[in-house]
Amino acid sequence: MGESRQRVGFIGLGSMGGPLAGHLLAHGFPVTVYARRPDAAAGLVAAGATAVSCPREVGANSDVVCTMVTGTDDVEQVLFGPDGVASGLRPGGLVVDLSTIDPEATRGFAARLASRGIAILDAPVSGGPEGARQGTLTIMAGGPAAALAAARPILDAFSARVFHMGDAGAGQVTKACHQLLLLITAEGVAESLALASKAGVDPGAVREVMLQAMASSRVLDRFGENMAARNFTPGIPARLYRKDLQIVRECADRVGAALPGGDVVRANIAKLLEAGRGDEDLAVLITTLE
Amino acid sequence: MGESRQRVGFIGLGSMGGPLAGHLLAHGFPVTVYARRPDAAAGLVAAGATAVSCPREVGANSDVVCTMVTGTDDVEQVLFGPDGVASGLRPGGLVVDLSTIDPEATRGFAARLASRGIAILDAPVSGGPEGARQGTLTIMAGGPAAALAAARPILDAFSARVFHMGDAGAGQVTKACHQLLLLITAEGVAESLALASKAGVDPGAVREVMLQAMASSRVLDRFGENMAARNFTPGIPARLYRKDLQIVRECADRVGAALPGGDVVRANIAKLLEAGRGDEDLAVLITTLE
Repeated sequence: MGESRQRVGFIGLGSMGGPLAGHLLAHGFPVTVYARRPDAAAGLVAAGATAVSCPREVGANSDVVCTMVTGTDDVEQVLFGPDGVASGLRPGGLVVDLSTIDPEATRGFAARLASRGIAILDAPVSGGPEGARQGTLTIMAGGPAAALAAARPILDAFSARVFHMGDAGAGQVTKACHQLLLLITAEGVAESLALASKAGVDPGAVREVMLQAMASSRVLDRFGENMAARNFTPGIPARLYRKDLQIVRECADRVGAALPGGDVVRANIAKLLEAGRGDEDLAVLITTLE
Repeated sequence: MGESRQRVGFIGLGSMGGPLAGHLLAHGFPVTVYARRPDAAAGLVAAGATAVSCPREVGANSDVVCTMVTGTDDVEQVLFGPDGVASGLRPGGLVVDLSTIDPEATRGFAARLASRGIAILDAPVSGGPEGARQGTLTIMAGGPAAALAAARPILDAFSARVFHMGDAGAGQVTKACHQLLLLITAEGVAESLALASKAGVDPGAVREVMLQAMASSRVLDRFGENMAARNFTPGIPARLYRKDLQIVRECADRVGAALPGGDVVRANIAKLLEAGRGDEDLAVLITTLE
């Protein structure tokens, strides 16, 4: 800890961001945090973080600011709102946005920050709250290679793998593709296990067979177990995927990609939310088929 | 080889059945084969199999008859057609149908054979031609436990795992669920990689990331590689999945199951066949999105 470390800011201390900021502290980084609800920062402050009262102050205290918030609008507000990060971070500073947001908006943020001499990486993650707690996330990054090299010690504190996918937005495109595949696979698991059940064969047993065969997937393992057991305790609440599928749909519209399977699962997630089941685990998707 | 072995018949010597009959010979079973095209049996005869001129003679020469043919009608013809297996096999004999066919038809065959004192297992497989060659198939069996116990030495000659799913038809229901999930997952991989490509990110690189993340699956590994490389050499020709999806659709209709994702991929497979691309690898599914 005697060596000189990057000063890291962290904004967004929920079920993903909270554990990540904790890993940074554990790796010896000086960490400054901001949370809309001050109690979200209390544990981190006890572990050595400095809490400040707005994103601008996070920027002023940091060389690199990580953001892990919900949506595109949240990122814009944190970066460019009144007292935003952009008004506090020095030229030469770096933003690492770990949120899952719109790729096109990310490119716009990159251009606006570049005019202030600030670089940004889009660095969305896969692995969920469990991967965040364990520090084993997979990161898909877009942006300048030099910025990624500068961010590496920070990303390495909470990830198992970092992939550089291309220029600004390429990380978000990759995440959109990932979420699309995850959700269509989940739709397949739901349809398959619902069919087994209706046809009189135990869905748990069918899942076990499929895990040993060509149809095997992590989604079958993780969400299929909960679907077969009808355990809808989150986990990852279904409502979070509505936003992701909206990003996928907008990205596809811009580039003229067809999403017939994606549209099926988007309609089913919408049904869940209408039925008031958005806070249950994604496994609840199977109920849309019953 | 001095010990007494079951005499095994094998009907259907294509890219799946041929290697399986070969494994039986290699394990020391006396094997009798029948093929509509006699040259399909030539290699097996050279390896020690006896070729006969109709399914009835296969039945007459065997304790257990394995069938590995294409469709429900083919199985019916082989078992109950003129000179069919049912007219040759002694009471107490056993049929092991490795084909992927309609679960309801399987139950009908079981009833008809039972009236002659013959048992049948529905024992469809997963693993494809490669699994058949390596003798590492996964088998999902339906039928009486005693029949499965009797068939075990035979199944063990070419499979890595055997699951008993329930009564007659339960193996075929499991296979239908498996094919449904495999194909919806393939649709997801196709949509995801097509989106990556149109959005300007290398689909091969996106596949590599997704293999390390929650969206990972065997289908992404196997078919995603060919989709990203645009290698449509079979492999497993896309047309074979039309039959499977028809079985899934009929099974779902009978039990009142919803298949919105299954219907998407069924429509896309139909498009491929209309476009004359049914003999290409299932990876060609990605072209329906372009």
